[in-house]
Amino acid sequence: MDTFDLSLYLVTDQSLSKGRSVEWIVEQAVMGGVTMVQLREKNISTLDFLNKAIALKKLLSLYGIPLIINDRLDIALASDADGLHIGQSDMPYQIAREILGYDKIIGLSVETITQAEEANLLDVDYIGLSPVFSTNTKTDINTPLGLEGIATIASFSHHPMVAIGGINVENTPEIIKAGAHGVAVVSAIVSADNVKTAAQQLKRVIQF
Amino acid sequence: MDTFDLSLYLVTDQSLSKGRSVEWIVEQAVMGGVTMVQLREKNISTLDFLNKAIALKKLLSLYGIPLIINDRLDIALASDADGLHIGQSDMPYQIAREILGYDKIIGLSVETITQAEEANLLDVDYIGLSPVFSTNTKTDINTPLGLEGIATIASFSHHPMVAIGGINVENTPEIIKAGAHGVAVVSAIVSADNVKTAAQQLKRVIQF
Repeated sequence: MDTFDLSLYLVTDQSLSKGRSVEWIVEQAVMGGVTMVQLREKNISTLDFLNKAIALKKLLSLYGIPLIINDRLDIALASDADGLHIGQSDMPYQIAREILGYDKIIGLSVETITQAEEANLLDVDYIGLSPVFSTNTKTDINTPLGLEGIATIASFSHHPMVAIGGINVENTPEIIKAGAHGVAVVSAIVSADNVKTAAQQLKRVIQF
Repeated sequence: MDTFDLSLYLVTDQSLSKGRSVEWIVEQAVMGGVTMVQLREKNISTLDFLNKAIALKKLLSLYGIPLIINDRLDIALASDADGLHIGQSDMPYQIAREILGYDKIIGLSVETITQAEEANLLDVDYIGLSPVFSTNTKTDINTPLGLEGIATIASFSHHPMVAIGGINVENTPEIIKAGAHGVAVVSAIVSADNVKTAAQQLKRVIQF
């Protein structure tokens, strides 16, 4: 994979999208300035997941925006997505890398300082710091890392870092200031009444 | 993949195993005569699924019994399982075959006569006829095919056929007589007080 831009990273969630399709949400968000998209689906058949991934891959290719698949290496392979995002209870990184190859992006969630140190030993393409603040979006969360956690990890990590969890227009500037290379958002975009405007507003406050 | 023996095909279900580990159930069942094992897991993390698959692959290799993974192509790849079993709402067969290759077994569930006709156009390694009788084990089921459905499919199908759904020692002989090359069982083995004996009793009534 060539370079990618972590600055405004959308993670989908059908249950928070107020009945609007994932394709519609994603296209509006991309028009608003989203730079990467992660398709995250739970409790859906493999076929439905794959069909969504194929539809998003087609859409995002038009915009030159990478599609990342959450957890499911099989869906990433079958949809020819640009990458895979794994958490600590997903496929181990080395196995995923061997199967997916070095042409694809692999991101890894880290939930503690120790996990961020361990990630330094891996050639992951980026790490996701999760969660920065407390949030109701993800159910499998540890104690929030906070801005201090981000700054600590930024001081030693070799990897590009995107922060996730409880992020909005108000707290984005301090997250970037603490050392994150981007913010990953779910509800701040997918639940917004005006998805495109919400993405634009976030984009505007991401300053390096 | 070389030849395989569909005659007594165990499908795992942790929730029906009365608290006993999948490794223990599988080893007892294999000692009782099971000829193939499918690891089926739902609502489990990818890492836990993979670890179970790796443990079963190691165990079954000792007995020369193939390990088949339900639905999850990523788990099949990462555990180097002997094959993948897909249903009608899983990965489409052709995509699975391209990714998994021709060295591995791929089985496909068919729930209707029409799906069995469609499967004749595919080079799947076997088909699973599901369900033969009504059952509470699977939730995504159609009208049972019955013995008549098996006989009809047996009259035109090019594929080895294993029947699943509501199978026990009493009805196994008539299922084989109707044309199935084997029976796939869940609760008849995993819920048995004596797992090995349950497998032996089924094995004894499978006569061609």
